Amino acid sequence: MIFKRLFLLLTLLPLLTVAQTSNLWLNYNQLQTPYTFYFSSKNSTFDVIKKELTKVSPTLTVAKKPEKANFIVIDNSQNSAIQLEGFVINASDNSVKIEARSSAGALYGVYEFLRRCQNKEKNIKDFVSNPTYQVRILNHWDNPDGSVERGYAGHSIWFDGEKISVRQDIETYARANASVGINATVIDNVNADPKVLDKEILLGVKQIADRLRPYNIKVYLAVNFSSPAALGGLKTSDPLDKDVIKWWTDKCNEIYAMIPDFGGFLVKANSEGLPGPMDFGRTHADGANMLAKALKPYGGIVMWRAFVYNPQGGDRAKQAYDEFMPLDGKFDDNVIIQIKNGPIDFQPREPFSPLFGAMKKTQIMPELQITQEYLGYSDHLCYLATMWKEFLDYPTFHSNKSVKETTLNQKLTAFSGVANTGTMKNWCGYVMAQSNWYAFGRLAWNPDLSAKQIAEEWVAQTITTDKKAADKIVSIMLRSREAVTDYMTPLGLHHLMGWSDHWGPEPWCDIPGAREDWMPRYYHKATDNGIGFDRSSKGSNAVEQYQEPLRSMFDNPTLCPKEFVLWFHHLPWDYRFSNSYTLWESLCQHYANGVKQVEEFIKIWKSVEKNVKPEIFKEVDNKLNVQLDEAQWWRDGCVQYFQQFSKMEIPFQPKYTLQQCKEKLTKKEYVERQKD
Amino acid sequence: MIFKRLFLLLTLLPLLTVAQTSNLWLNYNQLQTPYTFYFSSKNSTFDVIKKELTKVSPTLTVAKKPEKANFIVIDNSQNSAIQLEGFVINASDNSVKIEARSSAGALYGVYEFLRRCQNKEKNIKDFVSNPTYQVRILNHWDNPDGSVERGYAGHSIWFDGEKISVRQDIETYARANASVGINATVIDNVNADPKVLDKEILLGVKQIADRLRPYNIKVYLAVNFSSPAALGGLKTSDPLDKDVIKWWTDKCNEIYAMIPDFGGFLVKANSEGLPGPMDFGRTHADGANMLAKALKPYGGIVMWRAFVYNPQGGDRAKQAYDEFMPLDGKFDDNVIIQIKNGPIDFQPREPFSPLFGAMKKTQIMPELQITQEYLGYSDHLCYLATMWKEFLDYPTFHSNKSVKETTLNQKLTAFSGVANTGTMKNWCGYVMAQSNWYAFGRLAWNPDLSAKQIAEEWVAQTITTDKKAADKIVSIMLRSREAVTDYMTPLGLHHLMGWSDHWGPEPWCDIPGAREDWMPRYYHKATDNGIGFDRSSKGSNAVEQYQEPLRSMFDNPTLCPKEFVLWFHHLPWDYRFSNSYTLWESLCQHYANGVKQVEEFIKIWKSVEKNVKPEIFKEVDNKLNVQLDEAQWWRDGCVQYFQQFSKMEIPFQPKYTLQQCKEKLTKKEYVERQKD
Repeated sequence: MIFKRLFLLLTLLPLLTVAQTSNLWLNYNQLQTPYTFYFSSKNSTFDVIKKELTKVSPTLTVAKKPEKANFIVIDNSQNSAIQLEGFVINASDNSVKIEARSSAGALYGVYEFLRRCQNKEKNIKDFVSNPTYQVRILNHWDNPDGSVERGYAGHSIWFDGEKISVRQDIETYARANASVGINATVIDNVNADPKVLDKEILLGVKQIADRLRPYNIKVYLAVNFSSPAALGGLKTSDPLDKDVIKWWTDKCNEIYAMIPDFGGFLVKANSEGLPGPMDFGRTHADGANMLAKALKPYGGIVMWRAFVYNPQGGDRAKQAYDEFMPLDGKFDDNVIIQIKNGPIDFQPREPFSPLFGAMKKTQIMPELQITQEYLGYSDHLCYLATMWKEFLDYPTFHSNKSVKETTLNQKLTAFSGVANTGTMKNWCGYVMAQSNWYAFGRLAWNPDLSAKQIAEEWVAQTITTDKKAADKIVSIMLRSREAVTDYMTPLGLHHLMGWSDHWGPEPWCDIPGAREDWMPRYYHKATDNGIGFDRSSKGSNAVEQYQEPLRSMFDNPTLCPKEFVLWFHHLPWDYRFSNSYTLWESLCQHYANGVKQVEEFIKIWKSVEKNVKPEIFKEVDNKLNVQLDEAQWWRDGCVQYFQQFSKMEIPFQPKYTLQQCKEKLTKKEYVERQKD
Repeated sequence: MIFKRLFLLLTLLPLLTVAQTSNLWLNYNQLQTPYTFYFSSKNSTFDVIKKELTKVSPTLTVAKKPEKANFIVIDNSQNSAIQLEGFVINASDNSVKIEARSSAGALYGVYEFLRRCQNKEKNIKDFVSNPTYQVRILNHWDNPDGSVERGYAGHSIWFDGEKISVRQDIETYARANASVGINATVIDNVNADPKVLDKEILLGVKQIADRLRPYNIKVYLAVNFSSPAALGGLKTSDPLDKDVIKWWTDKCNEIYAMIPDFGGFLVKANSEGLPGPMDFGRTHADGANMLAKALKPYGGIVMWRAFVYNPQGGDRAKQAYDEFMPLDGKFDDNVIIQIKNGPIDFQPREPFSPLFGAMKKTQIMPELQITQEYLGYSDHLCYLATMWKEFLDYPTFHSNKSVKETTLNQKLTAFSGVANTGTMKNWCGYVMAQSNWYAFGRLAWNPDLSAKQIAEEWVAQTITTDKKAADKIVSIMLRSREAVTDYMTPLGLHHLMGWSDHWGPEPWCDIPGAREDWMPRYYHKATDNGIGFDRSSKGSNAVEQYQEPLRSMFDNPTLCPKEFVLWFHHLPWDYRFSNSYTLWESLCQHYANGVKQVEEFIKIWKSVEKNVKPEIFKEVDNKLNVQLDEAQWWRDGCVQYFQQFSKMEIPFQPKYTLQQCKEKLTKKEYVERQKD
């Protein structure tokens, strides 16, 4: 069987060239109306606007007075409905007016208009749009050596071997971001190398900032907390040490001298072995506030991550809450705590982190992951907007707020996503993965958009404007995340993936001497008696961190949403759900259904062949077959591994034996497919 | 299509003879050990014990002293672990000891032993079993004219045209009840005819009581509250009227003179047009307590039903709570309030009635429905123990009690079920329906038994002892109720069935001038905007009647268990669940899945043919095909009716057109199949 499979894969490999969709979703139809344009300002952002409009109206006839124009773009509007980066559009068949109070707002308005054109909406009446979050920011986990942590699209677009080396067509990146309203980017990894603050690199960062500025994108840096010692040669990096404070103040002065609109710092501290203020007996607040004070004169901010846990801290899911709640109210007003959506780590499905809503006197922001670290890399079609919407709309029962609402009504608001970009021509390694970058930006601008609307927009701009075909593709996208959850980690299971590279199933993982809390068994706890992590009041009591009624609801296996049941409960294999199936039967059904879904996706995709460019058709078709194979691998690996404990019958015929599943993991076939 | 269908039915009809399973689950293997028996008492109950044991040990050698026997049945045990109707069994290959503190307990012990034998368990060590509920009672909805309301197994086993006429083999009924611990029966309909208290009929009731007494079954009567006027010729039936009180006192004296162990009265008052104390400006408590006082000297009880609602009372689901909660604590100690499991009326799925747990100072008892009024009559395989367990185990969050626990810890405890018996040879109209009678009794005795265990016991005694075949049949049974819910009323829909006879789908029902709260549209509220009954805090606020966290959970469409979502919410057709499917898609999936389940049941059933008696095989096979056809009818009728509002695509090919579905309802083919 394994030989047949390997053969299949080898024959597939040469086909796995990806479509050259390097233009992302920036595909325009020509405007049919012969417009005369009027622009209220002259600056680099208006240059971008003009360049963009030239693509749809090549001659670009420009009038000097608005009365002479029928396409008006102004950044000096007096309309009070418009906020600083917002805009108003009025358009009919033969006139367009885009009003803003800033050049950035005008730019965003133009992109909105172009998106509407691609979606064939031409009559727009008083469409007011203001961004929900102020800082809409990508986190690149790019290392100075050019590698990208959890990147599945080649190398860094910013670094190449210890120096800045920006991808040539970075303007496409800037346009793509601006087109969806992303206005900020952290160019280096949160596992930060102290050397990013070195003069040499900062000079490169300045160049990046200069290139991105016309697109209203500010540059930020992730910094290593021990930079004063590691880079500056100080004896300590204690945040209360006078020399340390001076070092950071000087560094900020240096940065802002080069980059006057530099955004600020992102910090991962005292987390997974990285240094932080607790190394010196200080708190997260001490560390964050010290940096904040150095940035404050320039309007810079600190995004301080709440992603903390250690092997001695008990249930990992509880630790961020335990560590940060005592600090609620202790952070400066240019600090914002960056919290991952779930309490563990970007799993296919997690309940929301209980910090959302609980931290009432602290500015907080969500951190989402666009790159598919745990969701099939850039090989699996997994549209993430459904997941993000589930997260954002979840009721916290803190003052009746949804998760989203707990991150608003702050002086400073922000929304971050870990980027999925790289040097591959198509930027993301998979045309379908581009949709997640798009969706992230759209939700940062307006988290009330539906996952469906965003998918529809993206498909129309990227894949096809044929309505019927688009509907089919959208239907795949909307179902895809649930399919992935089903074949990877159904019913609240989590962290079953391969050691280190987080690829494929490895519930059996056993590495002598390794951290227990990095082992899948720490999370699934499968034994002859059952499966699941008991976080109920009888177990780790993680449920306590949620507000009523969630606490009681999660605490009770009957009421706990089925999708979280093994997150919060350890249940016997013959536990019976209200739908009368046992836990084992349900588990098998979900795994089988995940695979079935991918089979259906393949069929649906084949049905749109004539509506899609051949290279895109082929790319998705090939990748879906890879996804199907890996879905079967996940299903067969997990179900057969768990069967060793349940000793119950598997209601389908696995494709792979458990042994084959284990061997497959070591082959790292994936690497072979990474070539552009 | 309709013609083909009719033809199919006509050809099926002659086949629809049911197996002659008149012995119910009382099928024994002969005991292999040559026992000598010892019985501690001589009385009519021990006569039953001996008769029962003669069936498995025909010679029945009896010793006069226990030392000479190796099968001992005693009713004078000093074992303090045994309660009045409980028992202890110790058994090995060649000796059996059944100890009890009453003859009834001895009888129950013997039946338990015989059940274990049939299930091939012979070694029993100190098995102590005491009943959970004191009164384990069937409610027969039998009318004096011989008809049975909501009966699908022929005519009454008690009445025939205005007089008592007991089914000849009523001892089988008595044995069946005793074998599962049922110790009480209300022989007449809750929609009670005053004449059941007439001397003539009471004489017949006395004969019934005499025949059931050896089996420890007490007789009760459902009484009409206006009996004093209607039967006694008084001017009023006002419960505070002196003459009325005297009339009831005299009537009780009369009854108890004939039937000294008469159980008491079941009363449906001020409900669906029946008279009650509120007709005279009195309360339910006034009415119930007056009757209770008349019964009190004899140890009789009043079971007073909380099934009340009227067309002017607002949301029907709220009315019982609204009407009874103000009376909490006002009932005498020999009154118990009988509450249907759900707040509406025995639908395929309802949330539990909020009275459970809320009434803290009143004795309460559940009323379940064994007869399948809303679940396919005696034509659909629908094993109800899973539904009852879901109900009993549901957390109420009143003092941390499950629904079951809210009905215990009372001076008087009781558990009632509306019977599914009739004059058909097999008692229930369908061999599979017998399982529900069996399960009801077993749960009344021990509500902690699993639905699976009960099914296993019943299958072993009724269908087959082949383990593999039995497992398959049990798997069908356990899935059957969810299948019925799926093809009839998924996602919390309810009350979509045909007008009056409650057969088949009739969401379109529109009867001019009829009570609006009897119309399906009152419940589904389907419009172009969506579907479902808004009982949230923005709607009727029925959620208010539940304890937190249930209140907030039910109130929130994201957190509301999906199976109740349209019970508590009116949602747009394109509402998207967290699994990414829209409401419309989910609805269609559930309807389609219900049908698919029945198709699978048919396949599974065919695979056990060689392990099952031919007539049982044929009966179930035929009925499953009827069920499949009706499941398709439900699916096609509901989905196409709702599609008129949703205007969305149905993802499968219906078998029937909407018009055919509507016509089918009028044909009442069912009646044709009622012949024994």
